[in-house]
Amino acid sequence: MGGMDGTRFDVVGIGNAIVDVIAQADDAFLERNGLIKNERRLMDAAEAERLYGQMGPGIEMSGGSAGNTMAGIASLGGRGAFIGKVADDQLGKVYRHDIRAAGVTFDTADLTDGTPTGRCLILVTPDAHRTMSTFLGACNKLTPADVDAATIQAAKVTYLEGYLWDPPEAKEAFLKAAQIAHAAGRKVALSLSDSFCVHRHHESFLALVEGHVDILFANESEICALYGTDWDGAVRAVAGHCEVAVLTRSEKGAVIQAGGESHAVPAMTFGPVVDTTGAGDLYAAGFPYGLTNGKSLVESGRLGAMAAGEIIGHFGARPQKSLKELAATL
Amino acid sequence: MGGMDGTRFDVVGIGNAIVDVIAQADDAFLERNGLIKNERRLMDAAEAERLYGQMGPGIEMSGGSAGNTMAGIASLGGRGAFIGKVADDQLGKVYRHDIRAAGVTFDTADLTDGTPTGRCLILVTPDAHRTMSTFLGACNKLTPADVDAATIQAAKVTYLEGYLWDPPEAKEAFLKAAQIAHAAGRKVALSLSDSFCVHRHHESFLALVEGHVDILFANESEICALYGTDWDGAVRAVAGHCEVAVLTRSEKGAVIQAGGESHAVPAMTFGPVVDTTGAGDLYAAGFPYGLTNGKSLVESGRLGAMAAGEIIGHFGARPQKSLKELAATL
Repeated sequence: MGGMDGTRFDVVGIGNAIVDVIAQADDAFLERNGLIKNERRLMDAAEAERLYGQMGPGIEMSGGSAGNTMAGIASLGGRGAFIGKVADDQLGKVYRHDIRAAGVTFDTADLTDGTPTGRCLILVTPDAHRTMSTFLGACNKLTPADVDAATIQAAKVTYLEGYLWDPPEAKEAFLKAAQIAHAAGRKVALSLSDSFCVHRHHESFLALVEGHVDILFANESEICALYGTDWDGAVRAVAGHCEVAVLTRSEKGAVIQAGGESHAVPAMTFGPVVDTTGAGDLYAAGFPYGLTNGKSLVESGRLGAMAAGEIIGHFGARPQKSLKELAATL
Repeated sequence: MGGMDGTRFDVVGIGNAIVDVIAQADDAFLERNGLIKNERRLMDAAEAERLYGQMGPGIEMSGGSAGNTMAGIASLGGRGAFIGKVADDQLGKVYRHDIRAAGVTFDTADLTDGTPTGRCLILVTPDAHRTMSTFLGACNKLTPADVDAATIQAAKVTYLEGYLWDPPEAKEAFLKAAQIAHAAGRKVALSLSDSFCVHRHHESFLALVEGHVDILFANESEICALYGTDWDGAVRAVAGHCEVAVLTRSEKGAVIQAGGESHAVPAMTFGPVVDTTGAGDLYAAGFPYGLTNGKSLVESGRLGAMAAGEIIGHFGARPQKSLKELAATL
């Protein structure tokens, strides 16, 4: 079913297709394995094998930042597509099943060269903090050829996760998608993903935001890392760099900077906060869903706050309730 | 480290090595797919593929009745081994990792004929009931050759799950293990697993209990199905058929029948009941752990009730807390 503007999708997300492996660990385990609490780092196959061998029993679920965002768009009733690389293995099948079962179109071809599907080993310490080590695997093989032009052209917004700046060829895929989107008169959105990622790619992220991004998502530590300054300085700095900036600060709510105006949107919760993983991913679902469905900046912000509020009320970064039904109660 | 009686293990469990895939579903979904709520049924590869394709997004975690039991034994500080069949695929690696990470010895060789690791599609309805459809996969290829005599001889108790009566060759593996155990002067324990399983194999289960089982675990519906009678009748009937019978009735507690005596053991909980899956598996961990570590029947029953009480306080059928530490608080 196409939109009046010829679109088939509200948002197409491009990101690392990652299966999360979640296990409990204590602080001594992190130290013994050279891990820094709350850090999100990359590891190669050998290190992934070694760390997994040390870890306790886990549970597996589909994740990936943009994948979580797209599951959120679908849960809101939006029309979403996902571009990302999984292998033709069991975890790849799980990933494809889960995102399609959520209602998202996902047609990127399987990788068949023997590289396994990417995974993220998530260690949860007793203080509920999460330390993530990602083995990119098949994600490293996302190339510009995987960016289907017709899909990008048919989406009101192309949404890119900052983590895509890690796999070398994904960067090109990312830029190709942005160019196609802009040539078709569509918008490009980017999430900075995490402050470690911003530090890893500082200069190129700055150039990217200035040159290619219409809608920017960042939390406090990310936007401060990007501009090398404090919150107030960063809020001022971003205003000139992209059309819309959605800057989130956990329980302090968000600031939306757009066209010289600044809007504050309070945070939302539904019961106790259980696990903050995915809050940013889901904010980045609610906001563009609103924008592409005729809502104002502030109404869209409220949808972002709502989607983030649902996700932090339970473990895992994919919605457990229908966000569409939840939105009807606002 | 060996025991004074030359044992290396308190318990060796033999069972179907199954990865659980858990997803939400509504009653209409069950009906549309011909599923009966609370039923545990078997399905072939084609049906597994079809049902998975219909299901919502899932989470994956290692399960299997005897596997859950062995993880419980290890959590209690017991010495456990597991015999079961996984494939040399990603889910098989997940299964092997999880049970070893729990502290259980698991050395059964991978299946390499292309049959995938078994899985159980678990649909959770809004009323918190669980409907399970199992694709046995590699479990169907457990054979007597997988029963390592040295492991059985080195374990005080050989524990068998009733579900093993489903895969054809596993039955022989099961009987071989019982014979080796008895020849070495060890005990054989059996869990009836579920009432649907008892109905599927009624006659042979009766013969098995009479001929080969020293310690029987059953819940109310299972023991009633076995003897085709009500609770009181079943409690009387089982007394003559095996040395020890542990009969559980959820919140009503358990009855232990042994040597003409009958002991009532109350149920135990630690906070609200969240998910009763695995209660029987964990009762069957606490009880034999107690028996093989010098505890009385009633003390062993209390350990069973405690382990079951921990597991029903959270989702999933593997312990989240150290059962050894929990036992120290009793």
